[in-house]
Amino acid sequence: MENDATDTPLLSVQDVLAHNTPADCWLVIQGEVWDLTSFVGEHPGGPSVIVKYAGRDATDAFVEIHALSILRENLSTQHFKGRLDTSTITPEWKQSTQKTQATAKPRGPKPELASLINSYDFDKAAAASASEKAYTFYSTADTDCWTRDANESMLKRIWFRPRVMKDVTTVDTSSSMLGISMSMPLFICPAGVGSLIHPDAEKALFRASKSMGIVEIVSTNSGHPLGDIVEQAPGHPFLFQLYLNKQKEKSRELLLKAESLGCKAIFLTVDSAGRGKRESDERLKSDELLRDPITGKMMKAGAGLTRLMGSFIDQGMTWKDIEWIRSVTKLPLILKGVTSAEDARIAMAHNVDGILISNHGGRNLDYSPPTILVLLELHKNCPEIFDRMEIYVDGGFRRGADIIKALCLGAKAVGMGRSFLYALNYGAEGAEHLIQLLKAEMEAVMKLIGIRDLSEVYPGLVNTADVDHLVPSGPDHPYIRWRARSNL
Amino acid sequence: MENDATDTPLLSVQDVLAHNTPADCWLVIQGEVWDLTSFVGEHPGGPSVIVKYAGRDATDAFVEIHALSILRENLSTQHFKGRLDTSTITPEWKQSTQKTQATAKPRGPKPELASLINSYDFDKAAAASASEKAYTFYSTADTDCWTRDANESMLKRIWFRPRVMKDVTTVDTSSSMLGISMSMPLFICPAGVGSLIHPDAEKALFRASKSMGIVEIVSTNSGHPLGDIVEQAPGHPFLFQLYLNKQKEKSRELLLKAESLGCKAIFLTVDSAGRGKRESDERLKSDELLRDPITGKMMKAGAGLTRLMGSFIDQGMTWKDIEWIRSVTKLPLILKGVTSAEDARIAMAHNVDGILISNHGGRNLDYSPPTILVLLELHKNCPEIFDRMEIYVDGGFRRGADIIKALCLGAKAVGMGRSFLYALNYGAEGAEHLIQLLKAEMEAVMKLIGIRDLSEVYPGLVNTADVDHLVPSGPDHPYIRWRARSNL
Amino acid sequence: MENDATDTPLLSVQDVLAHNTPADCWLVIQGEVWDLTSFVGEHPGGPSVIVKYAGRDATDAFVEIHALSILRENLSTQHFKGRLDTSTITPEWKQSTQKTQATAKPRGPKPELASLINSYDFDKAAAASASEKAYTFYSTADTDCWTRDANESMLKRIWFRPRVMKDVTTVDTSSSMLGISMSMPLFICPAGVGSLIHPDAEKALFRASKSMGIVEIVSTNSGHPLGDIVEQAPGHPFLFQLYLNKQKEKSRELLLKAESLGCKAIFLTVDSAGRGKRESDERLKSDELLRDPITGKMMKAGAGLTRLMGSFIDQGMTWKDIEWIRSVTKLPLILKGVTSAEDARIAMAHNVDGILISNHGGRNLDYSPPTILVLLELHKNCPEIFDRMEIYVDGGFRRGADIIKALCLGAKAVGMGRSFLYALNYGAEGAEHLIQLLKAEMEAVMKLIGIRDLSEVYPGLVNTADVDHLVPSGPDHPYIRWRARSNL
Amino acid sequence: MENDATDTPLLSVQDVLAHNTPADCWLVIQGEVWDLTSFVGEHPGGPSVIVKYAGRDATDAFVEIHALSILRENLSTQHFKGRLDTSTITPEWKQSTQKTQATAKPRGPKPELASLINSYDFDKAAAASASEKAYTFYSTADTDCWTRDANESMLKRIWFRPRVMKDVTTVDTSSSMLGISMSMPLFICPAGVGSLIHPDAEKALFRASKSMGIVEIVSTNSGHPLGDIVEQAPGHPFLFQLYLNKQKEKSRELLLKAESLGCKAIFLTVDSAGRGKRESDERLKSDELLRDPITGKMMKAGAGLTRLMGSFIDQGMTWKDIEWIRSVTKLPLILKGVTSAEDARIAMAHNVDGILISNHGGRNLDYSPPTILVLLELHKNCPEIFDRMEIYVDGGFRRGADIIKALCLGAKAVGMGRSFLYALNYGAEGAEHLIQLLKAEMEAVMKLIGIRDLSEVYPGLVNTADVDHLVPSGPDHPYIRWRARSNL
Repeated sequence: MENDATDTPLLSVQDVLAHNTPADCWLVIQGEVWDLTSFVGEHPGGPSVIVKYAGRDATDAFVEIHALSILRENLSTQHFKGRLDTSTITPEWKQSTQKTQATAKPRGPKPELASLINSYDFDKAAAASASEKAYTFYSTADTDCWTRDANESMLKRIWFRPRVMKDVTTVDTSSSMLGISMSMPLFICPAGVGSLIHPDAEKALFRASKSMGIVEIVSTNSGHPLGDIVEQAPGHPFLFQLYLNKQKEKSRELLLKAESLGCKAIFLTVDSAGRGKRESDERLKSDELLRDPITGKMMKAGAGLTRLMGSFIDQGMTWKDIEWIRSVTKLPLILKGVTSAEDARIAMAHNVDGILISNHGGRNLDYSPPTILVLLELHKNCPEIFDRMEIYVDGGFRRGADIIKALCLGAKAVGMGRSFLYALNYGAEGAEHLIQLLKAEMEAVMKLIGIRDLSEVYPGLVNTADVDHLVPSGPDHPYIRWRARSNL
Repeated sequence: MENDATDTPLLSVQDVLAHNTPADCWLVIQGEVWDLTSFVGEHPGGPSVIVKYAGRDATDAFVEIHALSILRENLSTQHFKGRLDTSTITPEWKQSTQKTQATAKPRGPKPELASLINSYDFDKAAAASASEKAYTFYSTADTDCWTRDANESMLKRIWFRPRVMKDVTTVDTSSSMLGISMSMPLFICPAGVGSLIHPDAEKALFRASKSMGIVEIVSTNSGHPLGDIVEQAPGHPFLFQLYLNKQKEKSRELLLKAESLGCKAIFLTVDSAGRGKRESDERLKSDELLRDPITGKMMKAGAGLTRLMGSFIDQGMTWKDIEWIRSVTKLPLILKGVTSAEDARIAMAHNVDGILISNHGGRNLDYSPPTILVLLELHKNCPEIFDRMEIYVDGGFRRGADIIKALCLGAKAVGMGRSFLYALNYGAEGAEHLIQLLKAEMEAVMKLIGIRDLSEVYPGLVNTADVDHLVPSGPDHPYIRWRARSNL
Repeated sequence: MENDATDTPLLSVQDVLAHNTPADCWLVIQGEVWDLTSFVGEHPGGPSVIVKYAGRDATDAFVEIHALSILRENLSTQHFKGRLDTSTITPEWKQSTQKTQATAKPRGPKPELASLINSYDFDKAAAASASEKAYTFYSTADTDCWTRDANESMLKRIWFRPRVMKDVTTVDTSSSMLGISMSMPLFICPAGVGSLIHPDAEKALFRASKSMGIVEIVSTNSGHPLGDIVEQAPGHPFLFQLYLNKQKEKSRELLLKAESLGCKAIFLTVDSAGRGKRESDERLKSDELLRDPITGKMMKAGAGLTRLMGSFIDQGMTWKDIEWIRSVTKLPLILKGVTSAEDARIAMAHNVDGILISNHGGRNLDYSPPTILVLLELHKNCPEIFDRMEIYVDGGFRRGADIIKALCLGAKAVGMGRSFLYALNYGAEGAEHLIQLLKAEMEAVMKLIGIRDLSEVYPGLVNTADVDHLVPSGPDHPYIRWRARSNL
Repeated sequence: MENDATDTPLLSVQDVLAHNTPADCWLVIQGEVWDLTSFVGEHPGGPSVIVKYAGRDATDAFVEIHALSILRENLSTQHFKGRLDTSTITPEWKQSTQKTQATAKPRGPKPELASLINSYDFDKAAAASASEKAYTFYSTADTDCWTRDANESMLKRIWFRPRVMKDVTTVDTSSSMLGISMSMPLFICPAGVGSLIHPDAEKALFRASKSMGIVEIVSTNSGHPLGDIVEQAPGHPFLFQLYLNKQKEKSRELLLKAESLGCKAIFLTVDSAGRGKRESDERLKSDELLRDPITGKMMKAGAGLTRLMGSFIDQGMTWKDIEWIRSVTKLPLILKGVTSAEDARIAMAHNVDGILISNHGGRNLDYSPPTILVLLELHKNCPEIFDRMEIYVDGGFRRGADIIKALCLGAKAVGMGRSFLYALNYGAEGAEHLIQLLKAEMEAVMKLIGIRDLSEVYPGLVNTADVDHLVPSGPDHPYIRWRARSNL
């Protein structure tokens, strides 16, 4: 579809302003007028941010998160209402919508990329130079941020048990996921808002994944259309993350498109039936966004309304939906977000092709278990799964040493999310530099624990004694016989 | 009784000043002259604060804590001596008693209620805006405040074990206590000094409990008469907390009044045979209140005199008193303040209807056990109790996640005290907002651990491995055979 | 002996200055000239401080630590050389010796005694108002101060297990040591330098011990003669701490004098065969005292010279010396400083009358075990000792709650040292106030754990689960079979 | 060889400047022109620092690390190209190379040596007074510095179990290593860059080792030729640390030279197959040294290039190389850097003469085990080794108490590295003072735990309960049966 100026209606500001309520909601985006009424409840970012611009020009806010092309990708032509007659723009109308928020402005100069020497440096650089909005959204996590921080601290509490006098003249970090060869067993976790820090977002990460020989899991919520991303590095394998949509047809379309574009596997997110309360982010938004999209009244920030409304994600997803996905695509299917041996066992029963142990970086449910402990839990309570499928893990990985620890404990590959978002501050080059640093760290560790390639990792190379007591001993509580209250 | 101006004596300032000793103690409260001599030793807040105003006008200090109506509620008419002849007031007399203490003044502006997004925000808002006297009294605890802080930190050390792929499209937090339906299993703990932060105090909390569908335990020491509180929300169930009075008749009256007003259950406090040494509070008071009410001399603050004198609470209460209470009322009887499996077992033997595991928010005995550990202790050493009665718990609960953890471990409902006092800073609306926030947090957690209603909670949804070693293994010490020294 | 001016030589400053070396060392103290040459090596405070004043007036430095009467008490008349002819004093001579050190001056005003409400307040008050020299000496400990701090932190990690519904209308803290009745089971630990903070020192403490009904252990190194101390409270029992002197005759004299003055028991210090490196104290002294008393050269502070020289304590003391003491006195004999089950067992074999578990407040050997853990160790590895003798403990006790914890674990009484030195800042009244505070804290705890008198304490009232794993499991290391290298 | 001015070519600045690339690299050092092209890749300090001075005068940078004599020691005469014709020096040429870097300048005055009273004081003094370059290089460690800090903190978590009533009138710290008598069981760890803080470097340390009766392990990378070091204290035994060179002949020469100079044993470093990422050091260097020596382009600091290139250390060293060393020299052979029971067992099978448990001060592999835990691991999983050879340990030792703890746990002697580098700030006298302090600390501890000489140490004198759970229980992971992924 082309929205050519010659065959589309020309609409005045007055026409647009007539549709300024949640129940009748038109927006102007780069000169085009769109009726988003039916999309308000499906917007991944929540309805408020759309309703806020009802009847107005939302271009600035839109491009902060999305590529323009994603609009046509996701909406049928019937929602396109015409082009704005720019001669009708009044100073008041313009001014009321075009203000760039203070929180969306870069906060300072970026340090030189060459001066960043570890993943923490990317974090610090983003904190100092990216917009407050971007950094807050990336760094935040659910409520007390306990799980976000524990992901990292538990990894640190695992020691190496280095072996000496091994010939490590050359070391080789190469590995594979699902048969895809990789220069190192690292993948980029899906994230939908890379545009906040760099307009190229997923496109830049995909270029970097190719140049460095790793893989990216592209998000359902990418700011760029999947096709645009994939064409950045033709032929390079990619993976696709799926949020199952309440409207299953939309998910079917996505799956078929991903498959048609050469996707190698589907990562179905299973840890997002609810949404985390990311308080630093809420505080930031509450200064800007306090109107209830339904009632139109000022609403109480934090009362949960924004968070619970409008999600397109199917909170009714159950194990049966695995069959439905299998009916749509034969691509390998990995469950992203399993954090218990019990669910790992059910996943085996459903013959999925892998699981990604993840707690969403602590963003959804605080006090969900640090992922490295879940990896240990699988060994304790469901060890047979390591013979059945590949196990991946993310959460808190910052160092090459962290990656090696997880590999020693049976992970096939490790994912990183926040660090890549911080690296995006420097575009594809930033991501490449991050990967180089991690690879160099891995190589140094490999030499120093005495292995030449990753076929040699095994649990005897790490000492988990400091955290072993934290791993649940089995599916039942060690001494509580009482079960659900309904049995009382 | 009406103290009508026409049929009561008119007393001069000189008349009043003649009764200015602990042994002969008249006070003026809103123009009325009362002889409080016999009440000095019974005052829940200690004798000093009364004796300080002997022969003077105590109105300001009185209304800070109490409704005026409570005076007539608690004292027989014989203590009313007449009305003050205001023409006899001298500037010196007035000035010497009417000064509002600096510590009783609000310290700053309140943030907008809508900007508070969790229970901690209410704490911070109270710290910044309420009077120093109110915040200090609410936040204080016994001596080192170790138990107050451990209540909270132990809850944080418990992890969730989330389950995925459950249909949680809708979740339902409703539950019940003693057969009373509730929108969520949360109750407001009794507290007697809400007036320090808001004049409506318990009345506001009772209105909020009705509008939000939870229940309030009203304190023996409420600032408002019980009847005034109950009439705020006619028909809404309430619970009543009892301190057994040394003068049993007074307790009988209270119990009968509570029953007559529709009370649903009695929470007998059993953890207050002594009184905590709340040092931040003592320091604050010692600046204002250093005269020994008995000797009239300046006394040593902190030497324990103020704390140990004058309490009306029966420190001789034993298990036999359960029978006495049963003889007065047939209402369900819950023991508030049990913290050991041994006492839980005795409570069962006495057929009480429930226990509330509580350490009084750490306010009475520092180093008493964090309550969530006591809940675990019951499972370990007295598991049969969960089949016999409902178990409640309070202490350190700040998040919806905390509540869910306790429910998973067998609690039927959870109480919060300090947070509601801080919320009272905003009256009933503040309490409602707090409850809304907690309910939204609970709902998010329920979705993310994979349960739809509270009949599905069970211990397998939490991991207590980090604190299990802190739970006593049984009634006896693990390796000390020696018992009481008297047996030496 | 009387040093009457009429029958003693009159000596000039020139006469005195002729004896200004370690090997020939005269000092002037309050107008009297003493030859301290033979005492240089025996001085409990080390030789340097004496040699520093060789040939000069040492009055200021002397009275800071000692009563003048102790000079005649400890030195035979032959060391008295005469009186100083004050007409010979030159300005230079006077000025060079009479300067009060900056570190010996009070640092600020004392808070009002009545405003101190716990033992920590006494510490803070001393830190703010006492001389730097006094506070540094009292608060210091060996090297890293790990044991000093762990004494306290381990006590905090022990929880109560309160019992409810006990009749605690009245509680009674009275107890006894060795048959001596006490108002509470608390004793004052021996300390020899109380004069640094108050001239009355041990005398004030002894008065307070009588007025409050507790007992004091008087130090071998008291600043006042034992007789002077005892006459402060005639008839009140006292205990005597002994450092065995290399010259056994001196110890015999001390023991006989103590016995003759009514001493009830001897506490033989067994943990001082070496001397701690108290670094904050060394740094303070090194600014003033850098001359090697032997070579006369500037010495390296901290090289251990000051610490290892000149001690009068017998580092060759062995178990056989128990017999020698028994041959001198039949008073009960308690060993102060036992910290292992092994030595406790040997103590039993030598039929001593008690042991005081002590690590000298962490002042002698850092990383020696926190005393409350030693108490637990005895239960684990030498439980029979509790049937054989009374066990006392000191180290880190700050609260009435701490005392109750130790009593529950089998201690017969608890000692406090530093807190009493800080309380001496206010003389006897300060010590009395401290004891009152501790007694009130004990009473509150007793009511709240449900006991009426101290015959009811027993291990089931505390939960030691948080520290149990730190208690050695037996005399041998749990998994190291290898013993001394000599057996290799 | 003598580079006499009369028989060597005189070269102009222009001649030198013609060789200013990595592939053709001449340097001027103290007036001599050297062709270092073939040495660029072998330089222990990496190639960059050489290439940086290609075609220029490197004197300042050279003498900072090396004695001038080491140049002739290590390079054959063919690399000497002639003397610089000083008349050809231009101001520009001179200025461009002779600038002393700011980071190489002392930062402040040194405190008086006599005022330093423990090893930490030397650290603080170096931090305040040595050049930033020196202090940063000495204090740094791999990545997160976790192991560096844990070495120390784990030692602190071990308690003493003192014994009393032992005759400790005199204590004797003397011991031996490999039959070499020592005044105390302490050795100086090898370090190659002492010149950064003092020009005498290893020479000063060797003088101190003799005067104080301990031993020094001289590094392969010493800044002074071995002969120059040894002649400082003729006849005093020394040990030699060896990095096996990729060019085995070079190692043979070194071994033979060491043997000829009277070396008593070879310490073969086995923990340096890779090189740590010492980030504080990298950051410092990256400000000065950003040119890739190969490409000539600005390089990304931290990308690992500097660290992985140019090492002369044989990363292919295996157990077979033990035989090769044995074929070169019959000196006792100790493996430096063993950190697992498994490798200890292999070391036994290869009949080495001892092992030095070391993690290189945490400088090479972060998260390698704290060395005191490795000592415990040997007792648990390889106890027979203590009957077969002497075991040494270094890492985190700061106190005499630390040394005694290791001896009690079976170490024959203890090494310290960083502390001696900090002490070098004061030359040989500084090292002597440090040793005196440690010896005095040891003596005090010995008296206070009740031993007279080091034949009496044994595990029962320490309590390791706080760290025992961190020691791996055996060669296999406690519950992970899965081994290397290649077996999947």
